Amino acid sequence: MVNMGSRFRMAKKLLVDVDCGVDDAQAIMMALAVPDVQILGVTCVHGNTTTENVCKNVLRVLKACCKLEIPVFRGASKPILGITRNASYFHGVDGLGDAPDPEAPGLDMVQKEGAVSAMIRIATEHPGEVTLVATGPLTNLALAVRLDPTFPQKLKGLYIMGGNTESRGNTTVCGEFNFVSDPEAAYIVLNDYLCPVYITSWEFTCRHKLPWEFCDEWLSQDNEKAKFMKRIFQHSMNEAYSPQSEKELVDGFGFVSCDSYAMAAAVDDSFVTEYEQVAVTVELAGTCTRGMMVLDTLELLNKKHKAFLLKRVDMDKFKSLLINALK
Amino acid sequence: MVNMGSRFRMAKKLLVDVDCGVDDAQAIMMALAVPDVQILGVTCVHGNTTTENVCKNVLRVLKACCKLEIPVFRGASKPILGITRNASYFHGVDGLGDAPDPEAPGLDMVQKEGAVSAMIRIATEHPGEVTLVATGPLTNLALAVRLDPTFPQKLKGLYIMGGNTESRGNTTVCGEFNFVSDPEAAYIVLNDYLCPVYITSWEFTCRHKLPWEFCDEWLSQDNEKAKFMKRIFQHSMNEAYSPQSEKELVDGFGFVSCDSYAMAAAVDDSFVTEYEQVAVTVELAGTCTRGMMVLDTLELLNKKHKAFLLKRVDMDKFKSLLINALK
Amino acid sequence: MVNMGSRFRMAKKLLVDVDCGVDDAQAIMMALAVPDVQILGVTCVHGNTTTENVCKNVLRVLKACCKLEIPVFRGASKPILGITRNASYFHGVDGLGDAPDPEAPGLDMVQKEGAVSAMIRIATEHPGEVTLVATGPLTNLALAVRLDPTFPQKLKGLYIMGGNTESRGNTTVCGEFNFVSDPEAAYIVLNDYLCPVYITSWEFTCRHKLPWEFCDEWLSQDNEKAKFMKRIFQHSMNEAYSPQSEKELVDGFGFVSCDSYAMAAAVDDSFVTEYEQVAVTVELAGTCTRGMMVLDTLELLNKKHKAFLLKRVDMDKFKSLLINALK
Amino acid sequence: MVNMGSRFRMAKKLLVDVDCGVDDAQAIMMALAVPDVQILGVTCVHGNTTTENVCKNVLRVLKACCKLEIPVFRGASKPILGITRNASYFHGVDGLGDAPDPEAPGLDMVQKEGAVSAMIRIATEHPGEVTLVATGPLTNLALAVRLDPTFPQKLKGLYIMGGNTESRGNTTVCGEFNFVSDPEAAYIVLNDYLCPVYITSWEFTCRHKLPWEFCDEWLSQDNEKAKFMKRIFQHSMNEAYSPQSEKELVDGFGFVSCDSYAMAAAVDDSFVTEYEQVAVTVELAGTCTRGMMVLDTLELLNKKHKAFLLKRVDMDKFKSLLINALK
Ligand SMILES: [Ca+2]
Ligand SMILES: [Ca+2]
Ligand SMILES: [Ca+2]
Ligand SMILES: [Ca+2]
Repeated sequence: MVNMGSRFRMAKKLLVDVDCGVDDAQAIMMALAVPDVQILGVTCVHGNTTTENVCKNVLRVLKACCKLEIPVFRGASKPILGITRNASYFHGVDGLGDAPDPEAPGLDMVQKEGAVSAMIRIATEHPGEVTLVATGPLTNLALAVRLDPTFPQKLKGLYIMGGNTESRGNTTVCGEFNFVSDPEAAYIVLNDYLCPVYITSWEFTCRHKLPWEFCDEWLSQDNEKAKFMKRIFQHSMNEAYSPQSEKELVDGFGFVSCDSYAMAAAVDDSFVTEYEQVAVTVELAGTCTRGMMVLDTLELLNKKHKAFLLKRVDMDKFKSLLINALK
Repeated sequence: MVNMGSRFRMAKKLLVDVDCGVDDAQAIMMALAVPDVQILGVTCVHGNTTTENVCKNVLRVLKACCKLEIPVFRGASKPILGITRNASYFHGVDGLGDAPDPEAPGLDMVQKEGAVSAMIRIATEHPGEVTLVATGPLTNLALAVRLDPTFPQKLKGLYIMGGNTESRGNTTVCGEFNFVSDPEAAYIVLNDYLCPVYITSWEFTCRHKLPWEFCDEWLSQDNEKAKFMKRIFQHSMNEAYSPQSEKELVDGFGFVSCDSYAMAAAVDDSFVTEYEQVAVTVELAGTCTRGMMVLDTLELLNKKHKAFLLKRVDMDKFKSLLINALK
Repeated sequence: MVNMGSRFRMAKKLLVDVDCGVDDAQAIMMALAVPDVQILGVTCVHGNTTTENVCKNVLRVLKACCKLEIPVFRGASKPILGITRNASYFHGVDGLGDAPDPEAPGLDMVQKEGAVSAMIRIATEHPGEVTLVATGPLTNLALAVRLDPTFPQKLKGLYIMGGNTESRGNTTVCGEFNFVSDPEAAYIVLNDYLCPVYITSWEFTCRHKLPWEFCDEWLSQDNEKAKFMKRIFQHSMNEAYSPQSEKELVDGFGFVSCDSYAMAAAVDDSFVTEYEQVAVTVELAGTCTRGMMVLDTLELLNKKHKAFLLKRVDMDKFKSLLINALK
Repeated sequence: MVNMGSRFRMAKKLLVDVDCGVDDAQAIMMALAVPDVQILGVTCVHGNTTTENVCKNVLRVLKACCKLEIPVFRGASKPILGITRNASYFHGVDGLGDAPDPEAPGLDMVQKEGAVSAMIRIATEHPGEVTLVATGPLTNLALAVRLDPTFPQKLKGLYIMGGNTESRGNTTVCGEFNFVSDPEAAYIVLNDYLCPVYITSWEFTCRHKLPWEFCDEWLSQDNEKAKFMKRIFQHSMNEAYSPQSEKELVDGFGFVSCDSYAMAAAVDDSFVTEYEQVAVTVELAGTCTRGMMVLDTLELLNKKHKAFLLKRVDMDKFKSLLINALK
């Protein structure tokens, strides 16, 4: 890694693909706060809420951070097969805690160019330099590689929040939300993105919870960003100790900002201290397991490409990144 | 139908999406020979051969008909999931009977714009006027509707050669070639194209064979188009009575130009004399039936949109259209 | 065939496995009326109604024909996987038209020995002589071959009413009632019964309807059997022209005694005039096609054993057999 | 539990269903060495080797322990669907390390009565008293509940070695050997055995390995049983550090006598110190996950019956039980 410790290190160029719920917002704000990170665009996808709402939410987040100059692109409104799940509305119906802002920016600020077209164009303009961080269903990424098979090889790397490693479901019996929201897209991405792929699984995030005490302190900072976060996060926090949360969470209660782990790995090379390298795919045909991530530990699938699964991380760095996000 | 019997009828505007094997070539040549039909573009897709070869083949066909001014667009090189079947090479490895032409046009004549982008643009430029004829795997069409959900409603209609109605397989146990080559694409198109959709099934084409005697006579016309067709068709004709053909064909031997039936229906409103209207979808999960078209005769799927399945046609008109194609 | 035309031909030994609805009753009564046919036992299985009701119904049929000496055995009450479908109650909740008989024989007349055990025992006692006629879900047959892998080879032949040949569903989108009621059992039987297997498909029966006029005349015979049939058949006849029947039936309305075709083929060697020989199996994994019979016309499954599918029959013989059944 | 600490406790009555590889042998020998345990019969099933070999192996084990009076029954030779996997021959082709014994008992010592019939009969003779321990594919158990739906409720409890809890495959990508060898049987048993069911998963056994040093010491006991075990175990021990073993094992190398954990739980009520109670089923339809055990932690399947998954055990007791087995 040539850029570590250098005074003149190049800015990290990021493309961020989100279904902007609250943890996507936290991840975006984390990235915006890192000095040497440049977000070239935010692409929106269905997931926590409609693509329209996702666009609105991203604009609100950018406005809260005074970064409305970053272009926002509208992406797919449906998964690949078009079979939309009933949304869980964990983050509220509007995806941001149902705490609307009358002064929120309008959808006219969304770019005319579509998300998939923009992703391909931006990666082509910066070959080998763009890190793609995907924290929603992978529909846009799947469409991009079908339209331009060379898209993945133009990327520096891909960071995904999604999938599970131990068949632990948080949405269907064995399925994690982002992957089961578009199993075919997840399958396409895990099989056709031959660039370095870094995966933050549901079980990983659960095993790296923060205490709610940290969260309380984090949100109590006296500034606009913290107030914004506190407002949009209230809805989810109210559900934090519900029976449903208890069933979903692995290893007990706590504050799990899922998407932020993928972002932290993307923006700070020293955050992850251990990866597991293993070929992965997605089950498409199962009754209970459709959308489940599959680890080919027995090497039966004859896949040469292996993904990097986050295994150990520096939680102090994670806390710092979060704290800086709201400064 | 305002255009029937009128001396001043408007030209039919066609977009043709092909995996240009020999019957795609026959279908294209049929359309080119109809006076009031205007082909706005030919989009290419994987299928009978690679997308590269399909582009080359289309250019050869257009050249043989002195219509190289029609733009040709390169489309998807893989099915939606990226799982490529071993091609059957029924039409030869190059898709056109392995009878290469040293003076064939080069790939530089293919448009820079991609097929999916062109399809959306052209339909948007002529709202409600474009008839799309698809005679290969439906990958381009599936991508188009995901990138622009309003694309189908901009079309006048969609004519498909593909699928089967009685579980009669010609490629897999219960699968027809175009559909099993990209089951997800076929599923997406049958479920998301809510415009009028006309389907020519494998069984239908088999039940409307022409005698080989007709074909012999057809090819014996003394002109460049007939000679071109004779050269590219020889490879398939040699297989016409093979044991494999016997297993594939429904109702005995004969000349079946599959893609031409869909084209005939698109270019001549009086060709089809009876349709069956029924909701259709595609089986994705079956072991033997993956890619099979499914007719919901019991109306269990609660689909409002019904497709028009070709049932009876005027075979004399079909012969005329074919004969004119080589004039 | 040694028994044709001979004055001293050996009695045909039959085992009949039923889910006794009205057409099962018609089939049983058909067999009972044929002079040289001996029914060694009737085994009962879930299907049109509960196994309890099936046992009661069989006893009522035997009583109506004064043949209560034929042993009746209780079989499986659930399909192999245990997933019971909501019954359609086409033949009424009790399976015999909801026309109860206060003097019906009690369940104490059912044998202590279970159906599967009895099937294996009887076939073992008459090796090579027993013809098994199965007109319900194939659960008992599937269990029999797992308990005694040599059971099929002890049979003279197996006649099945079930499955479809053209993906035409009468119960699920692509599924015929008997097969979708236990897809795994159908799969096991079609793959493990290597004896001669004769299949009467749903489409075949629909294409060999009788006019309702024949039925009216048939039921108007003035005797106990005809009166019995008239009573139990009334419920189904009332549904004969319903919208649901219209969707289910292939090729229009009429009187279709499905199970009777399989029985006619079993008891009269000259009834079937043409079979199609083809390897068959059952789709287990499909969303719309689970339980659908699959014909391997392309010979891709490498199965040596081929089933005989009824294709053409002598309808005059069929009428005679039916008429004799109620004499 | 009335039997704890009592001098006059009743003997535990065991039925053992095995596909007798080496760890099945270890489990049987463990049970035979426990004073208050009475094995009423050993039923044999396909799995590690053919059912014939399994019968032979069980007889050899019983002979080595001078317990040939225990009846041995031959069970299913194929899984429910009849699709036999290529055996892995982890325990050698004959299942017992390919170390044949010329003086092994002959198959004439196997009972005439079949395994399924015997299981039902024995449970019926001792209602509520019989503990069933199943350490192979669950085919016999699945057949038993279909033949006699009341069989499970006649049992005191069922102890299974099989399935996985974290999608960790040891045979297929996500499948454990016993379950993937007959996924339908595992499905039937997990869904239809409503008695107390105790499950020892693959991951559990891997996380409770013993050091190979213990094994060496264990086998070095100077007596006939230890010599017998040493001979039949050599083949597997040679594979203990192979690359294949490394991929299969969770959490590193070591001695894992899978089947013995299920037996220890069955024979010693104080062995298990913590269970996880959760509804379980088996995925049947997946491409990578067919045969995988599914934990319904989100309680989406609406199953009332929950299984007991072994979570913590007393490893000192386990060692004692093993040591006594070879004394
Ligand atoms: Ca997200
Ligand atoms: Ca074509
Ligand atoms: Ca029946
Ligand atoms: Ca075992």
